[in-house]
Amino acid sequence: MLSMKKILVANRGEIALRVMRSAREMGIKTVAVYSAADRDALHVRYADEAVFIGEAPSNQSYLVGQKIIDACRQTGAEAIHPGYGFLSENPVFARLVRESGLILIGPSPEAMEVMGNKLSAKAAALKYNIPMVPGTEEAITNVAEAKKRAVEVGFPILIKAAAGGGGKGMRIVEQAADFEEQMQLAVSEATSAFGDGSVFIERYVSSPRHIEIQVLGDTHDNIVHLFERECSVQRRHQKVIEEAPSSVLTPEIRQQMGKCAVDVARSVNYTGAGTVEFILDEQLNFYFLEMNTRLQVEHPVTELITGIDLVKEQIRIARGEAISFKQEDLNIIGHAVELRVYAEDPANNFLPDIGTLQTYVTPKGPGVRVDDGFEQGMEIPIYYDPMIAKLITYGKDRTEAIERMIRAIDEYTITGITTTLGFGKFVMQHPAFTCGQFDTHFVKKYFAPEMLQTEDINEAFIAALVMEQLLNTKQGVKAAPAAVAETSNWVKNRRSY
Amino acid sequence: MLSMKKILVANRGEIALRVMRSAREMGIKTVAVYSAADRDALHVRYADEAVFIGEAPSNQSYLVGQKIIDACRQTGAEAIHPGYGFLSENPVFARLVRESGLILIGPSPEAMEVMGNKLSAKAAALKYNIPMVPGTEEAITNVAEAKKRAVEVGFPILIKAAAGGGGKGMRIVEQAADFEEQMQLAVSEATSAFGDGSVFIERYVSSPRHIEIQVLGDTHDNIVHLFERECSVQRRHQKVIEEAPSSVLTPEIRQQMGKCAVDVARSVNYTGAGTVEFILDEQLNFYFLEMNTRLQVEHPVTELITGIDLVKEQIRIARGEAISFKQEDLNIIGHAVELRVYAEDPANNFLPDIGTLQTYVTPKGPGVRVDDGFEQGMEIPIYYDPMIAKLITYGKDRTEAIERMIRAIDEYTITGITTTLGFGKFVMQHPAFTCGQFDTHFVKKYFAPEMLQTEDINEAFIAALVMEQLLNTKQGVKAAPAAVAETSNWVKNRRSY
Repeated sequence: MLSMKKILVANRGEIALRVMRSAREMGIKTVAVYSAADRDALHVRYADEAVFIGEAPSNQSYLVGQKIIDACRQTGAEAIHPGYGFLSENPVFARLVRESGLILIGPSPEAMEVMGNKLSAKAAALKYNIPMVPGTEEAITNVAEAKKRAVEVGFPILIKAAAGGGGKGMRIVEQAADFEEQMQLAVSEATSAFGDGSVFIERYVSSPRHIEIQVLGDTHDNIVHLFERECSVQRRHQKVIEEAPSSVLTPEIRQQMGKCAVDVARSVNYTGAGTVEFILDEQLNFYFLEMNTRLQVEHPVTELITGIDLVKEQIRIARGEAISFKQEDLNIIGHAVELRVYAEDPANNFLPDIGTLQTYVTPKGPGVRVDDGFEQGMEIPIYYDPMIAKLITYGKDRTEAIERMIRAIDEYTITGITTTLGFGKFVMQHPAFTCGQFDTHFVKKYFAPEMLQTEDINEAFIAALVMEQLLNTKQGVKAAPAAVAETSNWVKNRRSY
Repeated sequence: MLSMKKILVANRGEIALRVMRSAREMGIKTVAVYSAADRDALHVRYADEAVFIGEAPSNQSYLVGQKIIDACRQTGAEAIHPGYGFLSENPVFARLVRESGLILIGPSPEAMEVMGNKLSAKAAALKYNIPMVPGTEEAITNVAEAKKRAVEVGFPILIKAAAGGGGKGMRIVEQAADFEEQMQLAVSEATSAFGDGSVFIERYVSSPRHIEIQVLGDTHDNIVHLFERECSVQRRHQKVIEEAPSSVLTPEIRQQMGKCAVDVARSVNYTGAGTVEFILDEQLNFYFLEMNTRLQVEHPVTELITGIDLVKEQIRIARGEAISFKQEDLNIIGHAVELRVYAEDPANNFLPDIGTLQTYVTPKGPGVRVDDGFEQGMEIPIYYDPMIAKLITYGKDRTEAIERMIRAIDEYTITGITTTLGFGKFVMQHPAFTCGQFDTHFVKKYFAPEMLQTEDINEAFIAALVMEQLLNTKQGVKAAPAAVAETSNWVKNRRSY
């Protein structure tokens, strides 16, 4: 076992506190680092020591690997926990840590590198026959060949510009008869937009759900999974509400996805905590998206349903110990839901709404966990992710977890800043969510800012409205082209946590 | 199912909030009542409505049954949750509620009455052959007869004055040869102290542990138990640290105690949540002490290891529904510890130390639950129980629950008032506690106020000191007579929660 008496946490906010709490429970000293914007931050007060590492912009502080290394030298910290974001998935930093004779609490730089690139990640996963969204592996311009591939892939299919982005040059084709016309339109649009008419063809997943599997690997060849998290409720292509388990997986599919996730991790000899992300279609087919090589924001829901402290496992693994449990020891007990409480305005396309927390009172009581990094009177800095807190509730079943979430949202008192709390309550009370019939288009399909305008929403009105929308969707009304573009971006958006 | 749209909570502080949280999660409106000392209390703010019921002393407000009934009439509340203490075990109040056509969320007045009296409780339990501490059932004055009974009961035995209290007329007798002399001393001491020389004889439990079993009964003849809580760490004969499960029970004894607790409840057709208290000796024999006919302060540890919301079950049962689960559905998952954070001074025999919460910051993060009724700047009123909060931690095993408790105690920041937080940390770090080798004499055996004098206790010094004490105890050094008297009081002390 490697010595680890002191850990430096190369992060800020709630995740820095989260990591330090587990370290403290293990009897390990902690070192915080902080930028000029975080002089009074809670993580600085919580740590046993704190080192100033530069100006507020991340690229002058939290993103400067050498400053982190120097802070370790200065304090005698033997290991670094990178949290999420910042340097957490940066193989260059991971190599620097290794070369400096320090321990990174995370996977190897090699595993980060493979999984950090879409093509190499896919290649690694294919060695284990992990399902991928069917489609062309290379860009195509020839219409006849494209049609042949489209028929093989199966309709509906999505044609998207190889050089594309933002929905340009993108077409959904429902049936073979329409293919040529749509392909020609896509090519011409792509040519005029990007000067390159080549396209990819893939199966169009019209109602995708985002399901991810938590994995842990140690240096003794053990790799286990800790079941799934569902993160389909997203805004701006980023997760905002997560839960575990998913309301839609069967035990069989859960087991298959778990096995695939373990295989993906095995393809890169993964060590530490990681997450294998999948897209799930309406027929419960799942397809590999990517692997995140760090702790996720939404890890607490997994902790609540498994009873495993993921940060402690990360630390144990980094010390060279084996994972503290076996796959067969794990069971899903109860249900957990997480709401990310962001300083942003749902009425203004969820754009950040930073300022001072004039009132800040967190909920308490049975089944409520709040992971935050602020207290009353503090300012949310403009330089970083505007997440104020993660509100997580746990219950014996999904219904109780949701009821507790609503109760906890009602207890949460924040003034001075607009937050996603009201939006969270809207989702928790929405029949599509409570029935488990939703996908990543939830916000687009069901949410409009005016639904939050009064404190006491006319619930009957909303229920009627959304049921109507729900029925329309069920009857085959397709998402608008804008939604298609968003799905594609969501798939590509690697740097969301 | 009875209608229950609005519940009045006839209590204050943390338990009022606790009950209201569950009610709110069930979609039930809540009514608070408050005395003049509680005008600004959190439970008043939390409720949907609040009714002023009188001056600060409880006998002018929280203890006046008719004022509670009137507050129900005024607000249309259909049911009353009494919490613990105050009117919660008062059969006269329970009858008044029934006669007023309201629902008491608790057992019948008949069950309260039987269990509220030591003799009738014992008689009810004996119908089911529940083990009792062996001894004479009636007072004795004849020495020869007493000796005969003492031999039957088995040594060591305790002779105690029938009219006694405070340790007067109390003698521990180790062997038959000493009996006559000790009996004569006891009789003469009792005669001079109380004018009555008659005594009881019972087996002396030298190292008692307090183990209690949570039960639930409904109106459909279902009675289940939710395993045990151990509450052996006490000060002033009152619980201060509780945990579930006990570190000492075997699965077999757990099952036996559970069955006995269910039988005790069945002996009075018990409905609602109740607790059957037992004393456990060093050979793991258990003896019935009493039944508490209400929710206990320490109920959260049971909620954490079973996943059951006890308040919701109470409400369901009072509505006429069946308990939401079966005995065989229940499992113990993980371990929970509770510390009662009292406004009292461990250096001054744990006497109340009330005042203003100048700083009040509660711990957060994984596995931490805080049930409290105060916020920063509030005063702890002198009129009521000086409990500020219950700090409860949960972990996958006892070690993790204790590590989290220590971490949470360190995070808890209270200034302006002396509390039991430091004492709690002392216990959590004490080898007798961490090894599970302790009894109700813990505080007397191991604690001295000077052990809390510095922030950073010299741990090696303390460990050495306590190990020495532990060894002395193991080697047969008996508790001093004062401790004997305290045990007896502790057994008799019905009104501790």
